[in-house]
Parts: sequence; structure tokens; C-alpha cells
Amino acid sequence: MIKPGDIQRYMQMRNQYKGQLIIHPIMTGGIVPEEVQKRILEEGWTKVGYALCYDCIEGRSGLITKPPVKEFLQNIAEFFGGDIAEHTFGCRVAQFAVMKAISDYVENERPKDYAKVVVTDPLCHYSTGIAAEMTGFRMTEPPYSGYPEYKVEAKGFAERIEEIRRETGKLPGLIVVTHVEPYYGNMNPVEEVGEIAKEYDIPYMVNAAYTAGVMPINMKDFQADFLTVSAHKSMASLGPLGFLVTTYEWAKKLFKKSVILPEWSGRAFGKKIPNIFGCSVGGISLISAMYSFPYVIERVKKWDEELKKVRWFIEEMEKLDDLMMIGERPHRHHLTHFETPLFWEISKNHKRRGFFLAEEMIKRNIVGLHKGLSKHVKLSVYGLGWNEVRKVRDAFYEIAEKYVKKFNLEYRVSSPLAETPTSEGEEATS
Amino acid sequence: MIKPGDIQRYMQMRNQYKGQLIIHPIMTGGIVPEEVQKRILEEGWTKVGYALCYDCIEGRSGLITKPPVKEFLQNIAEFFGGDIAEHTFGCRVAQFAVMKAISDYVENERPKDYAKVVVTDPLCHYSTGIAAEMTGFRMTEPPYSGYPEYKVEAKGFAERIEEIRRETGKLPGLIVVTHVEPYYGNMNPVEEVGEIAKEYDIPYMVNAAYTAGVMPINMKDFQADFLTVSAHKSMASLGPLGFLVTTYEWAKKLFKKSVILPEWSGRAFGKKIPNIFGCSVGGISLISAMYSFPYVIERVKKWDEELKKVRWFIEEMEKLDDLMMIGERPHRHHLTHFETPLFWEISKNHKRRGFFLAEEMIKRNIVGLHKGLSKHVKLSVYGLGWNEVRKVRDAFYEIAEKYVKKFNLEYRVSSPLAETPTSEGEEATS
Repeated sequence: MIKPGDIQRYMQMRNQYKGQLIIHPIMTGGIVPEEVQKRILEEGWTKVGYALCYDCIEGRSGLITKPPVKEFLQNIAEFFGGDIAEHTFGCRVAQFAVMKAISDYVENERPKDYAKVVVTDPLCHYSTGIAAEMTGFRMTEPPYSGYPEYKVEAKGFAERIEEIRRETGKLPGLIVVTHVEPYYGNMNPVEEVGEIAKEYDIPYMVNAAYTAGVMPINMKDFQADFLTVSAHKSMASLGPLGFLVTTYEWAKKLFKKSVILPEWSGRAFGKKIPNIFGCSVGGISLISAMYSFPYVIERVKKWDEELKKVRWFIEEMEKLDDLMMIGERPHRHHLTHFETPLFWEISKNHKRRGFFLAEEMIKRNIVGLHKGLSKHVKLSVYGLGWNEVRKVRDAFYEIAEKYVKKFNLEYRVSSPLAETPTSEGEEATS
Repeated sequence: MIKPGDIQRYMQMRNQYKGQLIIHPIMTGGIVPEEVQKRILEEGWTKVGYALCYDCIEGRSGLITKPPVKEFLQNIAEFFGGDIAEHTFGCRVAQFAVMKAISDYVENERPKDYAKVVVTDPLCHYSTGIAAEMTGFRMTEPPYSGYPEYKVEAKGFAERIEEIRRETGKLPGLIVVTHVEPYYGNMNPVEEVGEIAKEYDIPYMVNAAYTAGVMPINMKDFQADFLTVSAHKSMASLGPLGFLVTTYEWAKKLFKKSVILPEWSGRAFGKKIPNIFGCSVGGISLISAMYSFPYVIERVKKWDEELKKVRWFIEEMEKLDDLMMIGERPHRHHLTHFETPLFWEISKNHKRRGFFLAEEMIKRNIVGLHKGLSKHVKLSVYGLGWNEVRKVRDAFYEIAEKYVKKFNLEYRVSSPLAETPTSEGEEATS
């Protein structure tokens, strides 16, 4: 029985973290600019899920010209150095579409040349694994270097390719590299792997979920056949929404139109693209991405400034006793992963255990640490103003100081001395 | 080159139809109540695509308890008479998930008993065909009765099953019936087909995209194994969002957790459900569905009142010379399809050709007719107040009258006489 209390609860549902500073690494690149949120409200785009579909003539949202979705997708392709783009129900569906297309290609067109194996980087997002599982790929990886950098080298891909060739007599059907991976924020050697893919003639996908929309990306530099993008992760957009960008050559296979023919009616669905579920998003998430696009075009030009903040923040955090960033140095992405033995020690004494850290941050109006974790933390200061970056640093220091004193722990916490660079101005850029 | 003019255009994008009365048959069941839109704004849910993910502990949005997503999905299952529900990137992804699960079942567990064939109703939505195509099903259909009712009988399904059995020596792997189909708004014999499915022991899916959330639905009445639902079509929700409801028995296969094991890292993604892409929507569309759920629970109780409006509207429209509803009588759904020779005749004389009709309606602040069509129109008065239903009727009459006079056509258009029932009150219920 659905209880009246449950029903009441849905109506009263609050956004508990409204107004807080967001440092969740999957969120900071997706924060929708105030101006865009305002436009969404003013224009009443929250009224109906099919808000873009009034003037759909051809029966696929990617072909709508009023509003200019079709042109937008052309601009998206261009922005990322590709020829053709379609929008998808998120980056994971873009990855699935690639694997589905390659699966068909390997099985139906090139079964003698390619095995149904995908070589991925060893720290790819889980959605890459899920896409492989859904499409029946075996998944293999080159190694990473291990603690504390976890770097991946391009030559590992060549080794895996050779192994697969020895084992099956065929090449892997697909290589996937996550441009920046979601565990440590390391940038993978996408250009070098692109060289290898070209050399072996293996289709090559770069998953740019964490980078496309925050830093300049040109898939031609990677020699990639496919680029997958997350609008709600890195393009200042609501979700779910992703983009799949490819070349003219691959577009024919990847975005092949429907050919199924039901046996009695003989109806055809010839405008629909099966690999993206026929027709994709036609509402608010796509609208927000379109509004945000001009803003995204501008912000990627300021990536160096963002990296400065990230590196300053890492330096400051590492002044805390025993605290260390895990991942490559110098760091080239806003996703940062720290091991935090100090906070782990506190958690053992704290009645809220590992939850204390995220909760203390929330008390300071900073949200986004994974609840329950204190031994390691992952966060991002992307898009924050210098004053906000300092606020985040100060919060960690305050919490450390408070509990080191309270629990009388053998850690040394000195108050942060470094001021944020003043030449950059104090106002938030987010 | 991305031209500055393009960029400007995105920023200036307007909602051209803001404030208009919506009669688009895929939209009326999805209109988000004013109160819900207001809550979304007040709570700031438009800030980030992962708005529900702050308190995600387990790594799958369906397991989040703050806000109560997990409980919501339990309530959804219950509301539709099922045991287990998951949310999906739209009803099409729910349908795909079912076909993927059945594909695996047929191929891996019961290859001797079932053929990779799906029997669908002959007027199913294209997304059913796309799901079949994506998962490699052959698709066959029983016939419909033809003009003007296009009715489908349950016995046609039994005949197709027998044909497939004769041909392949096996049963079809899946039966799919669209509860109400999207061409004429006919209600299919879901209970009778459920009997047949049970008799033959064939898995059975009912696609309730056009009904679940507008009228009372209990999948047990259909003896369905799977119910697919569209939140943005029929649950007063933003999109993309769907629900997939099933039984305890099938949930094990349908929502099976990931088992892929990447060959170097050995990472496992054990909380993720591959058939729904690991983890589904975590933002605004799910939030809107949760806010709207109490409203949906109440509105399905008033379905009879909605049907009264629909039937009154049909009766009134058919008083226009030569105009006729296509589809079953009495009509049992809000999607109505009319053949409109009068408007077709006008279009031949009008400089805007077939576009004149939708454009004339828009001038009267009524949006949702398919642009360019005048020989047939599809529309829905679901959720409109009686005064609004009358307004829609009057608009058609006015347009007919205006052009019959202007082009001196041989049609008879008398001003509408029937008043809407006054006992029901005049205020909009939408």
C-alpha cells in the first residue's frame, strides 16, 4: 500500500544543498550558469518534457531546425574537431552506440580481421565497462604504474593488442581511452594511443566525459574515430545528455538509419537511428546545453587559469600533515584525489565515523565530498573563484585543526598562510 | 567555423509557444503542474544535472534514499501492480532493456524453446521496432481491421504464434502489446493477449507509454511480465524519463547486476545494472516525476471525467462537414485522430498549404498540431478544462468557417451549438 505519508514526502522534497558551494568532481563542470537557469525559467521550458518538439517535421530531434538543434549539433561536431555529432541520453549511451556499431562491424563485416575485444585504459569509467558488457565485448586493459601516480603508458596498449593478436589471430575490435580518468584525474596519452590505433588500423574512441567542455579538445589531435562527451558532467548542462562525435566515414555505420521491417504492416522507421534509440532527448537538458554553449566556448579558453587554481589548491592541501595528492604531477585536470590519513585518524575517534568529514564541510556550506569517506577524498575546484578555492582549503584546515586538538592527535596543523594570487581578482568566475 | 551569429542565436533562443494551450497528443499527459514547476525553481533543482546524487552511497541512483528515490521506485511498482521498478532514460530504454533481457534469455537459457522473434501489435510505437532492431529480434504482427477503426483482435496474436511455431519449431520469445497505440488511440486487448501469453508461456510486455499515469493501470490485470512507462508522456514529468516495472521473478534477469571483469584490473561494477546502462537518471526529470507523483495518483481517479471530455469533443468535431474520427468507437483514450477532408480542401487553396491549419491554431494560442498536416490531424484534450476543450473546438470551427467562405468551398459549417456540460464547472483542471 502506498502510504499517505510517502506521498506527502514527495511533495515536500527539499533541495538540501541549495546555495552550497559544489566541489563534487562529477558536478563542477556541469554547473548550469545562473543566466542559463534564469532563461530556462523565463521561457517556461519546465512545462513539458517534449519542449523542443513542437516544430519537429522529420521525426527526429536531431533534425529540428526551430529551435536550431540541427545547427547546434553541427556546431558541436565542429567545436570538438569532428564531422558529425548526435546527442544522446548521456555519455554512457554514446559509448554504447559506438560499441554497438563496432560490434556489428566486427561480426558482420570484418569477422576475420577483428576479435570482439575492446582494449580500454585500466581506470576507465564504469560506464565503459557496462557498454562493453551490453554489447558482448571482452574487455582488457594495459597496466597502470601503481601508487602514487597510477600513470598509464601508451606502449601498454600496443602490448595488449599484440597479446590479443597472438591469442586470437585477430586484432581487438576497438580501443577506448578515457581522456582524463575519473579515479585520479590523470590525463591519458590519447595522442600516442591514437598513433598506435592508426598503425594497427583499429577503431579508436576517446571518452572525453571529464574534459570536453572544460578544456580545449580537438579529436583530430587524438586521431580518434569517436569522441564521447557528457553535457551534464562537463558542458554546464542539465542531464541526462551526451554527445557522440565522429567522422564522415564512421557516421555512416554509427548513425545508420533503421531498416527493420515488421512483417505484417511493413512500416518503416527510416529517419530513426537505432544506435541512439531512434530519436534522442527533446527537452530541458538539450535546451540547457544550447543556452550554455556560448559560455562553454568561452570558458575552455580559460583552462590555464583553472589549472592554476587546481595546482595552488593541491599545494596548499599538501601542507596539511601527511596529506598527499594521488595521481600524476604536475596535475593536468580539475579532478583531484587526496589520501588523507589525518582525516582517517579523526574518523576513528569521531562518533560519526567516516561521515564526519563530508558533514563538517556541509556545515561550512561546501557540498560534494562522498559521504562516509575520510581516508581518501576526491574533489574539484573547477569554476570556483579564487576566494571560493581559498574557502575550501580553509574549511579542510579548520576541520583538521578542530579535531586534532579535540582528540589530541599527533598531527601538525598550521594555519594556512598562502594567500590566493591577488592578481587574478577575487570574484567568482563560476 | 562556428559563426558568432550562431552563438548569439543560442543565447537568444525563445520558447515560442510559452503560455499556449497544448493539444499535442504526446505532450498533454506529460504537462508538469504549475505547482511542481514552482517547486523545481524554488528549490534550485536546475543548477546541476546530478542534483539527486549528493547523498548517493551505493553508486546507483535507484538506491538513493535521500531524497527517497528507492522508496519512490517501490511506490511506482506498487502503483502499477508490479513488484519491482527501475527508472530509465525514457520508455524506449525500458523497452530495450526488456528485449535485451529476453534476447539473453532466449539465446542462453532457452534456445530450444524460443525463437528470436517478437510479436507486436501492428500499430506499436516506432521505439518498439527500434528496440527489436537493436537487440536483433525479428518482428511480426497480427493484422488490424483496417479503415476506419483499425482494431486489433487478440486472436491475431495466437495465429502469429502458431505461424512462428510452424515455421521455426519454436515459440516467439516475446509478445509486446501497446496498451493504447499512438496512431488512433485505440486500446488493444491487453487482457486477452495476456491470457494467450500465459497459455503459451511466452514472456509478455505491455507498453503503457500512453496510459500509465493518466488512467488506472494494474499490470496484474494484463498478466504482464513487464510494463513500460513514459514519465514525460503520461506522468506529468519532465524528460527523458521512463519506468520499467516487472515481477520478482523477472527482475532477477532484467535487473541482473554487472558481471564483466576487465582482464587486467579485475575491477567489478557489481551495483550497476547493465540493461539500464548501469545507473539511470539522477537529475531534474526524476525530481519532477517525484513531485508530480501525488498529483498523478489523484488524477488517474478522474479518468472517466477525462473520457467524457474526449467523447464530447469527438462528437462536436464530427458535426463539421465530412470530418470523422478514425479509430475505435466508443473511444477509450485521449489521443484522437480525425480525417479532415475539409481542411485538406482548404490547404489546396491556401498559400501556406498544409501548414495553414497548425498556424491558424497557433494564432489562437493553441499549439500541438503537426505542422504541415491538414488531411488528418491528431490531438488530445487531456487535462484541459471544459472551457478549454470548447475553445479548441471553436478554433477548428472558426478556421473552417473563415476559409470555406474565403475560398467559396462546398462545405457546410454551422456554428457550434452544443455548450459544454455546465455541471462539471468551467475551470481548467489542468
